[in-house]
Amino acid sequence: MSSERLIYLPLGGAGEIGMNAYVYGYGAADKERFILVDLGVAFPDMDTTPGVDLIMPDMAWLMERADRLDAIFITHAHEDHVGGVAHFYAQLGAPVYARAFTANIARRKLDEHGHPAEAVRTASTWPETVKAGPFTVGFAPMSHSIPESAGLVIDSPAGRVVHTGDFKLDPNPVVGEAFDPDMWAEIAKPGVRALVCDSTNVFSAHPGRSESEVGPEIVRLVSEATGMVVATTFASNVARVKTLAEAADRAGRSVVLLGRAMRRMIEAAIETGVLTDFPKVISAEEARDVPRDHLMLLVTGSQGERRAASAQLARGKYRGLELKEGDLFLFSSKTIPGNEKGVIRIINQLSEKGVDVVDDSSGLYHVSGHANGPDLERLHGIVDPQMVIPMHGEHRHLRAHAKLAESHGRPGIVAVNGMMLDLSGNAPTVAEYVETGRSYLDGSVMVGALDGVVRDRIRMALNGHVLVTVILDEEDEPLGEPWCETMGLPDMGSSKASLVDVMEEDLNQFLMRAGAKTLKDDDKLEEALRRIVRQTAQAEIGKKPEVTVVTSRMR
Amino acid sequence: MSSERLIYLPLGGAGEIGMNAYVYGYGAADKERFILVDLGVAFPDMDTTPGVDLIMPDMAWLMERADRLDAIFITHAHEDHVGGVAHFYAQLGAPVYARAFTANIARRKLDEHGHPAEAVRTASTWPETVKAGPFTVGFAPMSHSIPESAGLVIDSPAGRVVHTGDFKLDPNPVVGEAFDPDMWAEIAKPGVRALVCDSTNVFSAHPGRSESEVGPEIVRLVSEATGMVVATTFASNVARVKTLAEAADRAGRSVVLLGRAMRRMIEAAIETGVLTDFPKVISAEEARDVPRDHLMLLVTGSQGERRAASAQLARGKYRGLELKEGDLFLFSSKTIPGNEKGVIRIINQLSEKGVDVVDDSSGLYHVSGHANGPDLERLHGIVDPQMVIPMHGEHRHLRAHAKLAESHGRPGIVAVNGMMLDLSGNAPTVAEYVETGRSYLDGSVMVGALDGVVRDRIRMALNGHVLVTVILDEEDEPLGEPWCETMGLPDMGSSKASLVDVMEEDLNQFLMRAGAKTLKDDDKLEEALRRIVRQTAQAEIGKKPEVTVVTSRMR
Repeated sequence: MSSERLIYLPLGGAGEIGMNAYVYGYGAADKERFILVDLGVAFPDMDTTPGVDLIMPDMAWLMERADRLDAIFITHAHEDHVGGVAHFYAQLGAPVYARAFTANIARRKLDEHGHPAEAVRTASTWPETVKAGPFTVGFAPMSHSIPESAGLVIDSPAGRVVHTGDFKLDPNPVVGEAFDPDMWAEIAKPGVRALVCDSTNVFSAHPGRSESEVGPEIVRLVSEATGMVVATTFASNVARVKTLAEAADRAGRSVVLLGRAMRRMIEAAIETGVLTDFPKVISAEEARDVPRDHLMLLVTGSQGERRAASAQLARGKYRGLELKEGDLFLFSSKTIPGNEKGVIRIINQLSEKGVDVVDDSSGLYHVSGHANGPDLERLHGIVDPQMVIPMHGEHRHLRAHAKLAESHGRPGIVAVNGMMLDLSGNAPTVAEYVETGRSYLDGSVMVGALDGVVRDRIRMALNGHVLVTVILDEEDEPLGEPWCETMGLPDMGSSKASLVDVMEEDLNQFLMRAGAKTLKDDDKLEEALRRIVRQTAQAEIGKKPEVTVVTSRMR
Repeated sequence: MSSERLIYLPLGGAGEIGMNAYVYGYGAADKERFILVDLGVAFPDMDTTPGVDLIMPDMAWLMERADRLDAIFITHAHEDHVGGVAHFYAQLGAPVYARAFTANIARRKLDEHGHPAEAVRTASTWPETVKAGPFTVGFAPMSHSIPESAGLVIDSPAGRVVHTGDFKLDPNPVVGEAFDPDMWAEIAKPGVRALVCDSTNVFSAHPGRSESEVGPEIVRLVSEATGMVVATTFASNVARVKTLAEAADRAGRSVVLLGRAMRRMIEAAIETGVLTDFPKVISAEEARDVPRDHLMLLVTGSQGERRAASAQLARGKYRGLELKEGDLFLFSSKTIPGNEKGVIRIINQLSEKGVDVVDDSSGLYHVSGHANGPDLERLHGIVDPQMVIPMHGEHRHLRAHAKLAESHGRPGIVAVNGMMLDLSGNAPTVAEYVETGRSYLDGSVMVGALDGVVRDRIRMALNGHVLVTVILDEEDEPLGEPWCETMGLPDMGSSKASLVDVMEEDLNQFLMRAGAKTLKDDDKLEEALRRIVRQTAQAEIGKKPEVTVVTSRMR
């Protein structure tokens, strides 16, 4: 029996939709050589991560073993798969492999952060492969909502694993390769030990629809419009942007791309030859001289992001362009859970301007980029693996996906972040539980999710903040009266006097009575002052604020 | 020509879903006598109102004219219609009229706040009426997702207005009166000047479904369950709670009500005779001795509220009860936009426990309480008003609803909060724009939405907070070195030294060089110190925090 083993360890993406990072290892226990599949980010929200810029998987485990990491493979250029490459580049130091379009995006990221763009190497597609330590990895084209998504064929001495990346089974994806069942059947032939598989849409019970189906609907909508037309979608959905632009072209409308991401993605798609026949684009400046019924703006901000082009147009003028009564605004996108309020805010602002808004509620103007339940079953059938390991999903998705596999007689294993599976045997076993978590990029600093920084911000947001300053003389006697300042609290409470005055008065009363023992001891004194402030605030305004006490001693 | 006029003024609810408050007035301009229809609240969120307890309409305009207010009419007992009665009772001081169930809930609210419950008077239903100044008001039963919802028939010398409240056209609402087209045709007979109408579901293109349709589906689901069953819905949806309880009963399961709101609503429904034949309920304590396949828990928290029974059960034990592998959890509810993340959190926690979750995605286990587009058209047709004034909706709903009316040849007027309409003439005119807004109940204090309190909290949450303390002696020279404390910021930045140390050092450098003019002037000094802290933080951690400077002078 070999002492070598094949392991699978999700560090991000298994238990959430976002920040994908999956480690594969092969070798003797604790001496495995590793490859990393994807290195993504997730996005913060005000509820749990106020002020944070990006959320990343905790890569500490792999960073400590970076000398055993042979390569990083990126399946596609969505931020939740590629967004972390620059942030961890210095610590991981491994070459990054990706298909041309993805590599173009990854290089831009490294370059922006001052890292060498050459670290990213363009990979050809399956059956060509890349050798990385004990692994041989091939990029097998998959259709998805971004160009050049790839499933990875990962061969090791312990057999073949297929890691799907994000995918759908699209026979006509408008841009890029159609789903190719024959290629996948070929890949399956030698036998596949495990299918590590996208779970996002496992709850959708009908087969997924092709990207090509939205084209005719969008053409109809745009051709019937009488004012200016604005459409938003994910900038990275190059096929959709192309469909929208072609609908504009057919309706005799000039296309304007608004928003940095929109221009950057189209640029990358043209540079890499992914996009060949995109209609002519004019600038916002040129658009000002074009009659509004001859214009179509393609804009960023399908998720209601406050600073994106869509939100700016909803609020007022943006780069000299302004929406008016009778214009049409199309959301060719779905709203990701959590973003509803931002999207609805924009729709209401547009409504106030008299703009007609069309969204995806009709189901006509958007299709998903992920495989639905029946599509997953179909891929399971083609690849016919010994086991299915659901990834890219919250726990509910992973569990349902595993059940789906089981219902066809294939073992399905729910492995969440940190659960290391040994795939070498006939059945997978849990080899180890690795401590994982999240890191926050906050400004320019990486902060651990459990460091308390964000917790303190949330507390200030919920409770307000009171600052107390006390000065003590050489004999530890109060010098003057204590001072309070408040932030995020009302000026006045139940006694109809200034809240600050009431708190200062209560603190002063306490200090005049306080014994030498308390006054000498910073910790005791601060704790006592904090308690008084909280009690007074509770009585005055019905709220216990956060309190910071600064004691200055004239020693 | 009469100098008297009939006016309509929404102070809340027209431009948002929530905090309904509609004023009607009749009399000579600026001498009108008023009635108020509904007095609701809205709920805060972390994005825009962290730490706030309740959001209320700004009632200042009406409070200044409280001597001209003859009565308050509450259409039904949902919080966005009745939630404000206790908070404004003292300032408005008018009697409150409602049907028995609604009155029961309103009295509980007044009582909890120490106001006399007798201020709430139980009204009989149409054709009986209540006289209030120049108005005669009748409560005409309407089906909705709470017992005893009513549309108001508001007569004045200037004619009849129908104010629908929230409603659906349900021929079989399980609890309470079915929609009665004959009654509404009778009400319409003398001619209706304006129909002021619920707009919530105007975007739903199919006719609404009856509450009675979910019963058989729920019965089937519960009868097939093998473990414990837990179901959540809005506690105030008494018909649904009854349907769920009866499904339990039929399956031989004992019913447990968990969550204060759930018990209170059923209690009110029984007290007022709304609910007569509710299955026997057992306590959580009794339930511990019942086999889990003989139990069904009906719990609060359908919106994922962190402290509700559903969330507590998802996290662990609640009142001695615990969910296990093979149990079933049913969301017999829809998720209100903005609450998705909270609901999904619970579903994932339940998934981790191996609990099967069934939600409304199948459309089988929930129906809405509001009239859909075709239902609105039907009511417009029956009441046949001179004009339709959409209310209870965001701008997009009001606009679409007005268009719907126009499409049938009836004028539709979008009147948002603060827009006073004169309904006396043949066509409505805008009489005045009244300043409106929102108030926040924050702890025990009412805070204006524009007072800056919440804005400061959001800033602290996004940027963190730095406190700077400087002591100056009698000659305005710094006494010792400046102190910094931070909250919600990382300990260390780019220079790998303590952030506080770096800031203190920079502040100290500045103070040593600062001229007498700066040191003497509190404002100048604080502004300079604030600028240094923000610059240093930007360099160290890539973030500009909020800064509070406390200068103490030894004078």
